[in-house]
Amino acid sequence: MNSSGIQALSFDVFGTVVDWRSTIIREGEELNREKGLDVDWATFADAWRGRYAPSMDRVRRGEVPWTNLDSLHRASLEELLDEFGVGGLSEEEKDHLNKVWHRLEPWPDSMEGLSRLKERFIISTLSNGNVALLTNMAKRAGLPWDLIFSAELVRHYKPDPETYLMVPELLGLRPDQVLMVAAHPNDLRSARENGLRTAYVLRPLEFGPGGHAEPPDPAFDFVAGDFVELAEKLGV
Amino acid sequence: MNSSGIQALSFDVFGTVVDWRSTIIREGEELNREKGLDVDWATFADAWRGRYAPSMDRVRRGEVPWTNLDSLHRASLEELLDEFGVGGLSEEEKDHLNKVWHRLEPWPDSMEGLSRLKERFIISTLSNGNVALLTNMAKRAGLPWDLIFSAELVRHYKPDPETYLMVPELLGLRPDQVLMVAAHPNDLRSARENGLRTAYVLRPLEFGPGGHAEPPDPAFDFVAGDFVELAEKLGV
Repeated sequence: MNSSGIQALSFDVFGTVVDWRSTIIREGEELNREKGLDVDWATFADAWRGRYAPSMDRVRRGEVPWTNLDSLHRASLEELLDEFGVGGLSEEEKDHLNKVWHRLEPWPDSMEGLSRLKERFIISTLSNGNVALLTNMAKRAGLPWDLIFSAELVRHYKPDPETYLMVPELLGLRPDQVLMVAAHPNDLRSARENGLRTAYVLRPLEFGPGGHAEPPDPAFDFVAGDFVELAEKLGV
Repeated sequence: MNSSGIQALSFDVFGTVVDWRSTIIREGEELNREKGLDVDWATFADAWRGRYAPSMDRVRRGEVPWTNLDSLHRASLEELLDEFGVGGLSEEEKDHLNKVWHRLEPWPDSMEGLSRLKERFIISTLSNGNVALLTNMAKRAGLPWDLIFSAELVRHYKPDPETYLMVPELLGLRPDQVLMVAAHPNDLRSARENGLRTAYVLRPLEFGPGGHAEPPDPAFDFVAGDFVELAEKLGV
């Protein structure tokens, strides 16, 4: 597979560009010290992330009206604070904790890889995160997106087709001129069903030490160990 | 007026960030040489821009369904090629000429001013240009937007309220935390009616040498001669 014809790269964000788990654990442990809590934040982070897909699926099935990811995260947070027996947080403290998703740290190769890829391609997010979340994250970490594509713009969550198709439609491209980059085979299979090309980036540490990445699907156009290797494979 | 509370700056683009008239004249004169034409491109540019507001108003009034700016520009171009007696352009040549709006050059202070403002604020477009146009323009000229807000995202053209309100809604801000920056008092008055703060930047050369800028409205929060002066007034 060569990269000819590809004009734009759209990146999944949580787990692909940034390491949600480590950031939540680090900020959570600070909160333990500040508030005298003894929450196991690795378990908490996994439980929070575990509610992500089910909460979006309720929106996707039309059981609840459109709700952006900050609000879905917040509803899950309220439930988890109860389950983990964390009381006594003020509204301001809960809002700050909820917005840890705006402060996620990039994987070590993300900045260098994205900067290189930006020289040749339009680079954007294509995330279920809301626009404010993705913008604040990029601003804080210096992620050099050309533009932000979010599920919020079409009020559909991935893997609804409207999300993938938004990118070529708004960029005036054919779907096969857009390369979806993600660490999750399911996301890439859905992108492919909608005509986008696909690059699988392995992030074996997404779910913590000792984790592993799912094997690549032979149908993916590119497979890379990180964004720098992806840039090399795309000839940048 | 101080800048406290302002989190995001949204920029009008045509005439405010980029000099549409000079770019069209320069590219048009190249086309004269290539094709042996003798079009007066200053007149042509002004006529093309003259059809801009009326063409959007037909969409705003619902007389035609949503049509993005590339397509409105193209319909105007077809009429003007007839009026100016320009025949014999291929489809590819007409498409290239139409996309001169993707290749507009920034005013001399735009890059320095935007780069400084980006250090402190979220900076975005808020333009009637479509997403592809604004993205290609930014990519080519190196305009360092944090994100692209376009009328196309809400399928309403300025001055419809949906355009101005999109910025605070999607950034999770109050309208008065957003500063609209434009060289056009009407655009700023509409932004202000929707609760945004306003910065008027004088671009007396927008309509050519010997032109003048409209006087500022006393209701505007900031007035500046260019983006570098705006950065200074905002304390960056």
